[in-house]
This record gives sequence, structure tokens and C-alpha cells, in this order.
Amino acid sequence: MLATTKAEISIDRLREDLRCLAEIGREEDGGLYRMAFTPADMEGKDWLEKQMLEIGLETSRDGAGNVIGRLTGRDPEAPVLLIGSHIDTVPCAGVLDGTLGVLTGLECLRSLKEAGKVPQCSIELIAFSDEEGRFGGMFGSQAFAGRITPDTIHSASDLDGVKLSSVMEELGLDPWQALEARRDPRTIAAYLELHIEQGPVLSEEHLQVGVVEAITGLFKWSVTFSGEPNHAGTTPMPMRRDAFMGVADFAHELPRILDENGGEQSRATIGRVELVPGSANTVPGEARFSIDVRDTDETVMSELATSINKALSAIARRRRLTFSYETESWIHPVDCDPALVEGVETAAKKCGVRYQRMPSGAAHDAQIMATICPVAMIFVPSKGGRSHSPLEWTDYDDIEAGARVMLQAIEGFAFKGGEESES
Amino acid sequence: MLATTKAEISIDRLREDLRCLAEIGREEDGGLYRMAFTPADMEGKDWLEKQMLEIGLETSRDGAGNVIGRLTGRDPEAPVLLIGSHIDTVPCAGVLDGTLGVLTGLECLRSLKEAGKVPQCSIELIAFSDEEGRFGGMFGSQAFAGRITPDTIHSASDLDGVKLSSVMEELGLDPWQALEARRDPRTIAAYLELHIEQGPVLSEEHLQVGVVEAITGLFKWSVTFSGEPNHAGTTPMPMRRDAFMGVADFAHELPRILDENGGEQSRATIGRVELVPGSANTVPGEARFSIDVRDTDETVMSELATSINKALSAIARRRRLTFSYETESWIHPVDCDPALVEGVETAAKKCGVRYQRMPSGAAHDAQIMATICPVAMIFVPSKGGRSHSPLEWTDYDDIEAGARVMLQAIEGFAFKGGEESES
Repeated sequence: MLATTKAEISIDRLREDLRCLAEIGREEDGGLYRMAFTPADMEGKDWLEKQMLEIGLETSRDGAGNVIGRLTGRDPEAPVLLIGSHIDTVPCAGVLDGTLGVLTGLECLRSLKEAGKVPQCSIELIAFSDEEGRFGGMFGSQAFAGRITPDTIHSASDLDGVKLSSVMEELGLDPWQALEARRDPRTIAAYLELHIEQGPVLSEEHLQVGVVEAITGLFKWSVTFSGEPNHAGTTPMPMRRDAFMGVADFAHELPRILDENGGEQSRATIGRVELVPGSANTVPGEARFSIDVRDTDETVMSELATSINKALSAIARRRRLTFSYETESWIHPVDCDPALVEGVETAAKKCGVRYQRMPSGAAHDAQIMATICPVAMIFVPSKGGRSHSPLEWTDYDDIEAGARVMLQAIEGFAFKGGEESES
Repeated sequence: MLATTKAEISIDRLREDLRCLAEIGREEDGGLYRMAFTPADMEGKDWLEKQMLEIGLETSRDGAGNVIGRLTGRDPEAPVLLIGSHIDTVPCAGVLDGTLGVLTGLECLRSLKEAGKVPQCSIELIAFSDEEGRFGGMFGSQAFAGRITPDTIHSASDLDGVKLSSVMEELGLDPWQALEARRDPRTIAAYLELHIEQGPVLSEEHLQVGVVEAITGLFKWSVTFSGEPNHAGTTPMPMRRDAFMGVADFAHELPRILDENGGEQSRATIGRVELVPGSANTVPGEARFSIDVRDTDETVMSELATSINKALSAIARRRRLTFSYETESWIHPVDCDPALVEGVETAAKKCGVRYQRMPSGAAHDAQIMATICPVAMIFVPSKGGRSHSPLEWTDYDDIEAGARVMLQAIEGFAFKGGEESES
């Protein structure tokens, strides 16, 4: 038996990896354009696979284009610990987002390798395809979790109408192989993902790490209030059926609705408002707007939906409007695995970082993975809450803190039999 | 001396004129498209001039394309009574709007002619060019009132960028002649205009005629609230700087602002709202919206502007937003001439129609004419308050009532020396 040293994160190596991958897909405006299945995305995947090979992982790509690097454990048959995130980006993205999760995972495995440590179960590092949704969202993890069908492959297309299947074929990939990407859930012990928070909480509270307990569910409604378009000068105020005033009333009710039915994790947003005819001198006859509501508790979500419906209905009555809505999406919240969360928290304590438990307000591959295995997530702060922007950033100190917690959590999970040396 | 009969409005003739002019510019969707200086508009003017000639008026067109028909009075040198409105339309218009005012004027002069009556002062019937604003609005009356400059002629263009000067030249008109359309104010005794109300008041109150006392002024602001665009899921409610919530707060304050500073005639409308980035899952970082405020009293307008400014400023502070606004227009309210209004009211009483005094909430050529002479207006009901739409309508009974009041008012003004017969 060789003596082992303690595995240690090198922030310098991680910084260098971030720098290298940030060169791939960068355009003149300073933003990254590594959208799924673009040449830049594929170049990024090639680069990633090369790094995996260099540190001695066995690499593979599944039918969905997910890149996987495997560090085989003492028990090669045991369910694996999966870590990772994604390296595809939105257009004009920053350099972190999912990329940080993948590269942190790479650094963790590299430091384990370097220290001569062999985990009990195998650890696989994965970069999922198209988390950002060029073709609808989370294609890679959905395929991995066995949640896509031939119809997905047939119909998925991007905003320009370009078909996923055509794009994959042009890249020499067989889109139908995506159906083969499904992994038997029994082969996966857990999934652990590090990601930037994409919100302001850690940053505002001067914390370094978020131990994610749950990923919020959400529902999105597209609502229409209909009244009567009228001349802004000739129609006395009491004779109006102003559709926008309905929206304003509703916006005003939202805080009460959240106070009465929601909790600290509840969010409600009116992000889109469209008035018809939309001219300054016409009382709006129609107002179409979006409501995006999120909570980690599906019961709370339902209660919020009921209260919102009641409020819309009462406002419509009061203002002599009609209203209708369409549910555009209803995404279930996901609880992280309590034992896994406990493990991450213990790791955070051991590392002595400033952390708090928190929910994830954004969607992640972990949400999909939760359908087949226990999951947990580690957040690092997003400066100013910014993400999906070249302004996205996390201080290196906090990146290092997150990476150390990640490594500690991996060790806690995959080295259950205590520290093991390479034989 | 020939014996004269009483001049009487013939609703049948007026109905026939309306029907004929409604054929000019009608398109397949049932709407009228007689926008200023289009072939349809010119065809309408030709038709109108022909009708004027047929009833024995002397016709002319001034440099702004205004069509004028003159019934010369006993004292040809005396300042004239001008009556009329406009026959150009918005796209997809109904058949009444200004056209009713012109054709009612035509019927009044026809009935006077027919009855063998000669007024003391001359009466001129005018159809002003481009009231609806294809090239900015009220071009004809502005030219008539001497309110255009070479710059107007140079720069006026429609929404498609087509220049007024080019369009006039193509029609064989010299655009510079518009500067010659100015009439010496001393030659005009008064301007009387009949128009549809374009609002719901008369219709809702089952009245036949509105005796217009004032034309409301208005100011239009383009306001921007700026906050911070944030992820709708990851940004806790108290950490948001939601620009749309600023608009909603403001909309909610509007009734209070009107109650505190305005009167029964005050109107305030938010007709346009644009959110940036305007996606359902992003807290709006910017909200741009219009405020259109009207009143018949300029002091009230100023007080409303001050209160609105205060409210916007307080809301911005409370919500940690910044705000800015641009005044897009400030149009002074216009009082109708008290004696002329009195004359119209007396006419309404004599005719035994159901009427009320009221303001005009919409802008009209009368507003421009008020800068050079006493003006008054007669409204007839707009069913359901509708205008600028093929659904625009006024019952023939009410059209007849309006025309009778118009005739009576003309007689009251231009026949001051008592009834006179053709010599």
C-alpha cells in the first residue's frame, strides 16, 4: 500500500480550467455563446473530455451527447456517485453557471487522483447536454433519466425552428441514440451538483456556500383581462372597463396573497405585460400578462394558485372585465435527499465555510435527476444575484470554498469505509 | 320679395349623402380608408365640391386642400360664419366622425337655400384637410389658422415615412401654397362644428345633443421606472427592484390623485406599458409606460401633473427604483365662446331636443380654430361610445336632432336681423 496524502483543491488549477473553457464560444461582446450542439459547445465538450483523460478518467459520451468521465471505485459494481452539471450556455452568457459545477467536479476528481485516493464506489463526472434549453431544456439529464420519447427527438426545435434531430445529424450524431442514454436508476447512488446560486441571497448575506434543501416548483400562467377599448379623452373614469387597471389591482394584491398563503420561499412575478391596442390615448381593452409563482412546497403552490384565481376573479367582477388564463407550466418542487443534504452540511462544517441551508429558486439538472436518485446541490454566491450575463461572477475565495465543500462531500459519500489508498 | 318658407332639415337627404360618401374609400373589411391626401380622400373632396355646387354654393379649395363652399350673405364684407369639420378618416373608420359634421352643414345650407333664405353674413362650409393626423394632425385647420411654417411642410411625413410634400405634389398640389391658406381672423366671425361625441356619455344618458362648452387639454408623459432585472425564482421578494410593481403602485394611486386634484372632467389613462426584458421568468428591470391626462382647466392639469410627479417620485423611492419622464405633449384646453354656446343651447331648447352641456374629451379642428375666432361645437351621441371603427354609429333620430340644432344655431347667428327672404 502506498501512503496517501490529503486530497486538496487547487484554486489555481480550477481558475486555469475556467479560463481555458471561457475561451471557447466567446464572442466580441464579451459574452459566451456555447449554446447546445453548436460548434462551440462541441468544442467545449472535446476540451472537457481531453481534461478528463489527462487526469486518468475513463471517458464516454452517451447518445444524448452527455460527456462522462469515470473514476472507478474499489467496488466497480456498486451504484456510482454522479457529480456534475452542464457546460452549454445561454446566448451572451457569463463564464460560470453550470460550467463551474463541471470544472469543480473535475478538480475534485483530479485532487483525489493526485492524492492517490480510490473511492469505494465509482464516481462519474457528467456534463449534461442542453441544460439551458436551446431545444426545450435539460435534454441531457432528461435522456439520462429516461424521460424522453421518440416524439421529443422528432419535435424538439430551437427558437429559429432548427430541429434538434437535424443538428445532431449534422454533427455526426444519431439522434435516436438519445433514447439509449437512459441509465438504470439502480446504477446511480446519488447525484451531487454544484452551481452558482443565480440569486442574491448568499451574496447579500456574505455567505460562501448554500446547502440546497429543495428545488422550487413553479407554475406559470398566461392571463388575459378583457374590458373595452375606449377613447382616453371621451370616456369618463366610471364608464371605463380598463383591462390594465385589472392587472394593476392584481399586482397590488400579490403581496397580500403571498403573505396569507405563502412562506419565505414563495415568489410571484409579473414579468410580461402586453396591452391591446397599446396606444397612449386608448383605454386598454385587453391586457395579457404572465404570472410566475414558485415555492418549494406543492401544497403552498396549490394554495397560491387558488388565491390568485380568486383574486383575479374578484377583480374582474369589480372592474366589469372578463378574465381567462392558461397554465403554461406546472413544475413540481423537488426535495433534496435529507441524508445527502446532511452530508453536504457536515462537509461545509468541516471545511469551516460560512454557509446556510436554502432552496434553489432556479431549475437545474438535479431536478430531473431527482426522479431517479437522491440528489443534493451546493450553491456558491452570485455577485449581485447576476447570472446569464457576462457580468455573472463569484469571487475565487467563494469558488474555492464551494469546491472544498464539494470534495469533502464526495469523500464523505464515496469513501464511507474511511480513507483508502491506491493499492 | 319672394315669400320664404321655414328651412327644414331633411333627414332623408342627409342619409343619402352619408350613404354616398360612405362608398368612397370603403374596403372589403367594411371600414373606410379615406386617409388624408389618398386618392379616396381626394375623390371624397371632389364629390363634396360637386354637392356644394349643386346646391348653389361658390366653391374653392385653399392651399391646404381645404374644400370651402360659400353661401354669400346680404353683407358680403361682413365676417363669415364658418361651419364644418373634416371628411378624412383614420384607417378602418366608420362613416360618421367628422363627415357627419360636414354633411350636416351641407344639409343646413341646402335647406336654407331651398327655403329661399339669405343670411346677413356669409356662411362658409369647410372640410378641413387631415384632421385625423396622417401627417401629424389638423393640417387643414392649422394652415387656415396660420399655424404652419415652411418647416411643417418640409418635415411632415406619415408613419410609413411618406412625405406630405411629395404626396401633395403627386396630386398636382403645390405644398407651399398651404402657407397661403391662412385666413385673416378678422374675416371669420365664428366657427361652429358638429361632430360625433366619440364617447359614451350622451348615449348612456339617453340624450340627443351635447352642447360643448370646452375642449379638454391634455398632457402625455412617457415614463420610465428602472430597477434591476432579476431571476424570478432566485430573487426573494424583499430583494427585488421590480420596475413593474412601480407602475402597478402608480396605477393604484391614480384614482386618489384624480379625486384629490381633479374634477368630474378629469381623465387619466395608462394606455401603453412595455416591460424590459419582458419575459415571464424575469423580474422586470425596466418599465416604460404612457400617462395621458386630460382636463378642461389648465390649472387642474398643472395640479395633476404635480401630484403625478410626486407620486412617481415617492413610489420610486419606496421601491428603490429610479424614474424619468418626458412630456410628449401639453395641449391647452380651449373654452368655447360663452355667447356662441348660449346660442347653441337656445337652439337646442327651441328644437326641443334632449341635450346637456358637456366638454369634449377629444381634440377637434375647433380647438385650432379657437386660436383665431369664437368657436362652439355640437355633439351627437356615439352608440356605445365607439368611434374610429366600422362599429361607430349614431341613430338617425339623433343625427336629425343634431342637424336641427345646427340649423337653428346658424339661423340664430347669421340671421340676427330676423328672417330674411331672397330678394
